Amino acid sequence: MDFDHIGVATRDATDLAELFDGLLDAPIAHEETFDGMAVVFLKLDGGGYFELLEPAEEGAIADYLDREGPGIHHVALATDDLPAALDRAREFGVDLIDHEPRPGAWGHDVAFLHPQSTGGVLVEFVEH
Amino acid sequence: MDFDHIGVATRDATDLAELFDGLLDAPIAHEETFDGMAVVFLKLDGGGYFELLEPAEEGAIADYLDREGPGIHHVALATDDLPAALDRAREFGVDLIDHEPRPGAWGHDVAFLHPQSTGGVLVEFVEH
Repeated sequence: MDFDHIGVATRDATDLAELFDGLLDAPIAHEETFDGMAVVFLKLDGGGYFELLEPAEEGAIADYLDREGPGIHHVALATDDLPAALDRAREFGVDLIDHEPRPGAWGHDVAFLHPQSTGGVLVEFVEH
Repeated sequence: MDFDHIGVATRDATDLAELFDGLLDAPIAHEETFDGMAVVFLKLDGGGYFELLEPAEEGAIADYLDREGPGIHHVALATDDLPAALDRAREFGVDLIDHEPRPGAWGHDVAFLHPQSTGGVLVEFVEH
């Protein structure tokens, strides 16, 4: 699978986007309000993105920030066949957070795997 | 900058490498013992790696595992001019963990930025 993005939980996506643009040459490629969050995608030169997630209301990312503080939240891998990727995860005995593809930010289909099955790494599969 | 790798702290790099190979099509590209750790790089299709870090002795990753448990530890971005990248970080007021490039795994030069300056994200610069 291809690297797609690193998801970052933040309390200030605007400030962090400005820093990462200057520091890492990662300009804003897309931004939207999604699922009660400000979501900002920053494009890396060689492909792939940072996805900054700033909650505007209660939810999983707000809870994460309260519990863990800001930082890397998940890694997303791109697939062109998300149902097949989920079937393969099941074959490997991986617990799924999303048992079926669901709509994610930027109009993509996404599904998360349970980090207890993947070495503590929260993995997202994304199909563009 | 280009995405280079995601660093993952783990207590069993062999098991996790086997899972990620099967689940994510990320075969082992390189492995070595470095700085008291088993270090395994897994290659992603479109470029970039997972870097699995399993401590064999006391050190920063062993401390991290004790404190945070296994999971994503850092993200590394590739540069072809590491001293210039560090100068730019200084210009942005970013605190540096490594003030000068130092030898990292796989024979690369590396330097880490302080996550308190980068939204809680532990960023590594790497020059191949």
